Amino acid sequence: MRILVLGGDGYLGWPVALHLSGRGHEVGVVDNFARRQYDFEMGVDSLVPISHLQRRVRVWREVSGLEISAYVGDLTDASFVHRTVKEFAPEAIVHFAEQRSAPYSMIDQSHAVYTQVNNVSGTLNLLYAIADVDPSIHLVKLGTMGEYGTPNIDIEEGFIEITHRGRTDVLPYPKQPGSFYHLSKVHDSHNIMFACRIWGLRSTDLNQGIVYGQETPETLLHPDLATRFDYDGVFGTVLNRFCVQAVVGHPLTVYGKGGQTRGMLDIRDTLACIELACLNPPDQGEYRVFNQFTESFSVLQLAEMVVEAYPGKAEIAHLDDPRVEKEEHYYRAAHTKLLDLGLVPHLLGPRTLASILSVVERHRDRVDPRAIEPTVEWRSTANVLRTSGAADRATSLETEPSDA
Amino acid sequence: MRILVLGGDGYLGWPVALHLSGRGHEVGVVDNFARRQYDFEMGVDSLVPISHLQRRVRVWREVSGLEISAYVGDLTDASFVHRTVKEFAPEAIVHFAEQRSAPYSMIDQSHAVYTQVNNVSGTLNLLYAIADVDPSIHLVKLGTMGEYGTPNIDIEEGFIEITHRGRTDVLPYPKQPGSFYHLSKVHDSHNIMFACRIWGLRSTDLNQGIVYGQETPETLLHPDLATRFDYDGVFGTVLNRFCVQAVVGHPLTVYGKGGQTRGMLDIRDTLACIELACLNPPDQGEYRVFNQFTESFSVLQLAEMVVEAYPGKAEIAHLDDPRVEKEEHYYRAAHTKLLDLGLVPHLLGPRTLASILSVVERHRDRVDPRAIEPTVEWRSTANVLRTSGAADRATSLETEPSDA
Repeated sequence: MRILVLGGDGYLGWPVALHLSGRGHEVGVVDNFARRQYDFEMGVDSLVPISHLQRRVRVWREVSGLEISAYVGDLTDASFVHRTVKEFAPEAIVHFAEQRSAPYSMIDQSHAVYTQVNNVSGTLNLLYAIADVDPSIHLVKLGTMGEYGTPNIDIEEGFIEITHRGRTDVLPYPKQPGSFYHLSKVHDSHNIMFACRIWGLRSTDLNQGIVYGQETPETLLHPDLATRFDYDGVFGTVLNRFCVQAVVGHPLTVYGKGGQTRGMLDIRDTLACIELACLNPPDQGEYRVFNQFTESFSVLQLAEMVVEAYPGKAEIAHLDDPRVEKEEHYYRAAHTKLLDLGLVPHLLGPRTLASILSVVERHRDRVDPRAIEPTVEWRSTANVLRTSGAADRATSLETEPSDA
Repeated sequence: MRILVLGGDGYLGWPVALHLSGRGHEVGVVDNFARRQYDFEMGVDSLVPISHLQRRVRVWREVSGLEISAYVGDLTDASFVHRTVKEFAPEAIVHFAEQRSAPYSMIDQSHAVYTQVNNVSGTLNLLYAIADVDPSIHLVKLGTMGEYGTPNIDIEEGFIEITHRGRTDVLPYPKQPGSFYHLSKVHDSHNIMFACRIWGLRSTDLNQGIVYGQETPETLLHPDLATRFDYDGVFGTVLNRFCVQAVVGHPLTVYGKGGQTRGMLDIRDTLACIELACLNPPDQGEYRVFNQFTESFSVLQLAEMVVEAYPGKAEIAHLDDPRVEKEEHYYRAAHTKLLDLGLVPHLLGPRTLASILSVVERHRDRVDPRAIEPTVEWRSTANVLRTSGAADRATSLETEPSDA
């Protein structure tokens, strides 16, 4: 089928585009390179070198004989969105094209407003373009498990049946997101649900867990096809960061007690889930939610698994939690809908950890230890980033664990 | 106390500012005159003539001897917001300064994006300013009962206790808003709740019903103190519109069956509720929600009440509903918290209706019949407004009830 991948130059967008292309779909990618711009702003880099999109597409053609169309532009430009959707004429649009870092959104006022305006208005423009060009286009939207927060009851997939004062209804699951970024995804979810209702659009909202890993069968075909690997305090995800810390001999930085429990999944499962969603579209007018993760782990559990996988070298350090979140809490979230569609998960075990650790070891000379520490404190309204303009203020993690 | 009223030049903002000033509070108003600009865009006017803010403030000083400070600027300008909050140093901020018309938000892509970006980023800027300048400032935010939609269970005030699979938690009440405007208020609510959690701010979110009426004790003191009266298809509220239609001999236009039931309140009760909220602030860090309405009516009930109040002249016409909403549904919503604080409601009866009808009769020569019809169709993504650039296309209601 014809699939347009928005944010197709990013960490997940690019391997998803490759995977879908390799599986025989007609794939286009759209990107404005905002993610690469954030690197310049933060003064950090992907641990694994990545090529320009134009080169990635060319190398993929050489390696596979398959064509990926690239569109360069910004979703906040409504006419670009309309034109691109019309020209590519997709059957499904996979939408990764949002600012996706919680700490980035919490830096200060301008980053909070940027994150919400960028994410919300980009998605609104997309909804209008789909409604105008072809309401049968299936919008596969990346949300996050972080939309739910950590309620003291089981998390369901998007909706919950509530019985109250003798009456019953199925209502959207209440959301308690934990950053201005997570809030932007909640805003998107409400907007998309509404667009499905009034215009009869159809959409799958994927509340994705935290993704780990960097290698997929397609990215391994050529170094120019590699995707990003982020370990910094702003864009790095927790398991990647722990693996980098283990390899460079830095204590694994657990925020607070480490009881924060989150849904997680292997990057290869993301690829499979996206294709499953595309191949099994909802009915016209339907808004459905899949919780896209395969296992739950606490942060401390993850740290312990990395210590075990890299024995004798890694140790764990507990930092004051820079976020405002429960350090211990109940967590049980449903995630059966993708399994029902046929997902066969790659579970997190020694083999996967060894593969991530080996990626890090290959690139250990590129690690910038100053990039790892948490630089964004949720309680502050005006964080100064030591990795950017304030790099000369950088000190060791031990003596200055977080900005006040 | 020192109270800053954002949107203090608008329909409710201005009479609230007068009321608070008259009650002995130190009042400042902030406005960017966006509401007056919408009139130019739509080619419509308030039925009751309104004076410039500068003149309003001057006349109030002459009539009452009381001073209201006026700040002209835009909440999307973060530095203006910060400066104004710092200079006025309020104890409470009453926030009316949002685009508040559902049909306006549904005109097309640019109006939808404008509404959400304006409302959400303005409120974000305000949250940052409060957190930076003085976290003890009480934010009294105007939301809407429309955030809840029409669930098949009782609506509670902001939160609901849910028992699910043997566990219980109190969670934010699920929201099913019915326009991009209503969605913007849901986004705001989530953002404000989060800011209270991470920065310890305190806020009262007033989910207000539909307000009717135009006269308050203070606005009646001088014609230059009058507030707006909107009856047009975009900014007019339902009861005002019915009264205008009755007076000019136009059928009362009920959308669909008219079973849409909504919480409503008298403009004088809005004034009382706002002061009650200010005088009884929540604890530091608390986010609380009041459902601010006094009675529920179906649209058809309202039409019948107006017909009865204006006998022999008014009749009811059912139009195709331009909105996407349930035309008949369950509706029961809690609204006890403001009563507990001492609110004594003005209920809707013959006397109130007679007063509204007499306002309309006094200004009947200013009624533009073309402005009344619904011009925004929820199912369309690109409405052409007959009252603005396309005025020459205006036809009678009977032959062309709505844009396709």
